[in-house]
Amino acid sequence: MSKLAIVALGGNALLRGNQKGTVEEQNGNTLDTLKNLIYLVKEGYNVIIAHGNGPQVGNILMRNDAGEQMYNIPQMTLDIDVADSQGGIGYMIERNLRNVLKENGIEKDVVTLVTQVVVDKNDPAFQNPTKRVGKIYSREEADKLTAENGWVFKEEVKADGGWRRVVPSPKPMKVLNEKLAEKLAREGNIVITVGGGGIPVYENEQGELCPVEGVIDKDSASSLLGSRIGADEFYILTDVPYIYKNFKQPNEEKLERLNVKEAEALMTEGQFAEGSMAPKIRACIDFVKNGGNKSIITEATKLEDTKYGSKITLD
Amino acid sequence: MSKLAIVALGGNALLRGNQKGTVEEQNGNTLDTLKNLIYLVKEGYNVIIAHGNGPQVGNILMRNDAGEQMYNIPQMTLDIDVADSQGGIGYMIERNLRNVLKENGIEKDVVTLVTQVVVDKNDPAFQNPTKRVGKIYSREEADKLTAENGWVFKEEVKADGGWRRVVPSPKPMKVLNEKLAEKLAREGNIVITVGGGGIPVYENEQGELCPVEGVIDKDSASSLLGSRIGADEFYILTDVPYIYKNFKQPNEEKLERLNVKEAEALMTEGQFAEGSMAPKIRACIDFVKNGGNKSIITEATKLEDTKYGSKITLD
Repeated sequence: MSKLAIVALGGNALLRGNQKGTVEEQNGNTLDTLKNLIYLVKEGYNVIIAHGNGPQVGNILMRNDAGEQMYNIPQMTLDIDVADSQGGIGYMIERNLRNVLKENGIEKDVVTLVTQVVVDKNDPAFQNPTKRVGKIYSREEADKLTAENGWVFKEEVKADGGWRRVVPSPKPMKVLNEKLAEKLAREGNIVITVGGGGIPVYENEQGELCPVEGVIDKDSASSLLGSRIGADEFYILTDVPYIYKNFKQPNEEKLERLNVKEAEALMTEGQFAEGSMAPKIRACIDFVKNGGNKSIITEATKLEDTKYGSKITLD
Repeated sequence: MSKLAIVALGGNALLRGNQKGTVEEQNGNTLDTLKNLIYLVKEGYNVIIAHGNGPQVGNILMRNDAGEQMYNIPQMTLDIDVADSQGGIGYMIERNLRNVLKENGIEKDVVTLVTQVVVDKNDPAFQNPTKRVGKIYSREEADKLTAENGWVFKEEVKADGGWRRVVPSPKPMKVLNEKLAEKLAREGNIVITVGGGGIPVYENEQGELCPVEGVIDKDSASSLLGSRIGADEFYILTDVPYIYKNFKQPNEEKLERLNVKEAEALMTEGQFAEGSMAPKIRACIDFVKNGGNKSIITEATKLEDTKYGSKITLD
């Protein structure tokens, strides 16, 4: 049986920090990433692709705000915004990937699923929203939005200040259609799913799916999906070829192989920044603890040369 | 083998003309529609759901415009906008449908596919853009956008005038992942696909999929999908329980059953308005001409009572 890999695209795989975010830029980055990712397909892996949506959903939120101010168009809720971004980004990946497959003479279908992820309504994250989303408001505007919509704001730490909406980032519990995604992937289709960490929903007492205003960490959702469907390998593609100890310090040390015990010790030491590398490493550790064979953090362009990448295994 | 029905949701199935378009309104309408649609599932049909996106993608276009003006966020192209709307609307349908299935004690999965539809680059529609999209501009603004983006504008006929962007509405040729959608549906999953008529793409000489600035008629795309996968019945859910001859005139006559010959004769007489009922009836005729058993145009609320609805058959 072919090995199954789940690959989470993030960081500059889709949109780079120094770019404006035009369609041309996004298509260009996506194509570059996929031209590298195709290596896994050529190696015979079945592949599931997950992806982030930070800059894209950020723009969608800003447009929501602008559309309401200029044209009085009702703002959508965050679940719809995440779903929108799954459509747009998923399509962009699927279209470019179909072209890369064709160019390489590989006959495979690509299928993009709009994907909900169930979280626990009692997740402590709902008491402590931490994820900053959307535009920076003045204190006055923020107070108004709190009164109108119940939004929670935190002050920006940057020099120019202002207030930014914060939403909870609950733990993913279950990915809808996970068995179907697995089946499609094992049949040889490339499956795009859990975009932006998935659209967060919770199950109420009647078992109904209810929307949640929050965002799920995409690496955490990918790791969960990977282990629930018995994926062999979990790739996180980001902007660095390795993870590092003492990152950006004189004694910086690249980490090529580490086991769970070593990775956990470095986490405890505070070697990895929250909101950056820490959640990625946590997702990698979870994947191998839950039965995965290997987690790899690297850049898309380094996939083909297996000397690159930080590999995390159980032992 | 269970019968396969393809159901196109349009008109007030998702968003009503007199509504502002809030998330609450859209969820409410969607839920109402699905509580009626469940009748087909109870009757043992396998079901594929298609849907329109007119008001939603219209709002996305307006937000694009506002986001650029207020915050200098690059506008997305129309293919991305349609894809975004497939994500948002597809999710809304899937979540509500899962809840309706649960309430009815029916165990089925629902899966939402982001779907591209291939059109012909040489379709004459590209020489004659007709579909009005986005906001109404002044002559000056329109000229500026034509110079910047090559957009084509037509003058509005309404009293307050202004100029509106028009885009081509090419004929759908092929729905990507159609075999997969069929397989999933015949296995008992409810499949949501070809939202907004699908994301329009064309194949260049190298067979690469390229984006197109245009919109595809959702009834036409649904009809094509239905006949290509051998669906038995094609439902178009709209705001009237029947189609009518001499609509809204003193001699108005509801049409309960008609064959292709009769339907085509009424089309030739100009009984049905372009941009309204004519494309729906054309899609219905195509479906039965291409092997479908029956096309039905009615309101969602009338599905359960089979005395309602206009039925079009081959003979």
